[in-house]
Amino acid sequence: MMRIAIPLFPGFTALDAIGPYEVLSRVPQARVDFVADRAPTSIRTDTGQPAITVDLALADLPDPDVIVVPGGFGTRAVIADPDAPLTRWVAAAHATSTFTTSVCTGALVLGAAGILDGLEATTHWNLLDRLTDFGATPVSQRVVVQGKVITAAGVSAGIDMALTLAARLAGPEVAQLIQLAIEYDPEPPFDTGSVDKAGPELVAMARANLSKLENVAVR
Amino acid sequence: MMRIAIPLFPGFTALDAIGPYEVLSRVPQARVDFVADRAPTSIRTDTGQPAITVDLALADLPDPDVIVVPGGFGTRAVIADPDAPLTRWVAAAHATSTFTTSVCTGALVLGAAGILDGLEATTHWNLLDRLTDFGATPVSQRVVVQGKVITAAGVSAGIDMALTLAARLAGPEVAQLIQLAIEYDPEPPFDTGSVDKAGPELVAMARANLSKLENVAVR
Repeated sequence: MMRIAIPLFPGFTALDAIGPYEVLSRVPQARVDFVADRAPTSIRTDTGQPAITVDLALADLPDPDVIVVPGGFGTRAVIADPDAPLTRWVAAAHATSTFTTSVCTGALVLGAAGILDGLEATTHWNLLDRLTDFGATPVSQRVVVQGKVITAAGVSAGIDMALTLAARLAGPEVAQLIQLAIEYDPEPPFDTGSVDKAGPELVAMARANLSKLENVAVR
Repeated sequence: MMRIAIPLFPGFTALDAIGPYEVLSRVPQARVDFVADRAPTSIRTDTGQPAITVDLALADLPDPDVIVVPGGFGTRAVIADPDAPLTRWVAAAHATSTFTTSVCTGALVLGAAGILDGLEATTHWNLLDRLTDFGATPVSQRVVVQGKVITAAGVSAGIDMALTLAARLAGPEVAQLIQLAIEYDPEPPFDTGSVDKAGPELVAMARANLSKLENVAVR
């Protein structure tokens, strides 16, 4: 049984965690668990709700095969704390993991755990430059694979990352079947999903909105 | 304040609910609540975990502006019960809603509530034919808009539906900004997300997998 751990922390982004969960929970012979500093508990997202229940503590699953760290405004508090249990757990679990991955600003937690030093990596477009703080080379790509370290761009990119990961864990046919099962044949109604496509005016407005949301979230 | 309700039931599919949640929670002057038969409670998904906490009962929010019904294997138990509180709530709330929407097999619940009679609608590809049971004309499209009734295809289609809905609720610029904020510029690693693209062999395998999962889920 392959063990996949998705660590949650207050202020994670719901879709960052649930996108990969929906894909990876369908990998045969794999078990996906949400984990948190302590358990059982429930952890609120960066919008205040919903909360997701967590049955296992970090200490209950010290050596998962696969780690998926979601992002969210809550990552700021995690990386600001040099003794954050989550960061220590990620660093230790990475020593024996088959894959260590992140979605969105989950990459900052990988960085704080010392995992991105010398690697190419990506994160949410709004914080891409921050990756240099951890010795990483920021790359504006949807999914960046560097050996066993895989980082994804913002929020929804976790679905693409998880399908890429599923193909590596269980073969391309399994990943293709999962993609069909979740009917992942996206038709975004607009063409504004990336900085390049959205253009400078929308990007400036989105940045301002994100700052406002962050100020509320970390109040 | 616009009220948006996402009713949950045991055995819903996590991404069906969280995809639209992530989009709609970013609509200005809107509040999104998960609701359930009774509250507070937490409701398990069709994979057994995670559970999402629910703070409001159906009776606490009888007249939301927008209804988003997710799918999942749990819809079968809902539609099999002619007195299901969820179905009664959807039927009553639809009378005053601005938009009544579904993701995946959430369409079956709209159907059981009598909402799809005479309309075109969509659902997960594996149950598309079932829509005729409710007087609907099945349409193999990502998002089907029929006046105030909007249905989406399987699981991941809820993100496309919610962006379409956000544009109607708050204008296209707001929807475009949300699409950028969640970096929704999808790059599926395979081209197998629909029945047509996957081809008959993968479709047959996916159907068999889904049957197995359903048998486990409704055990």
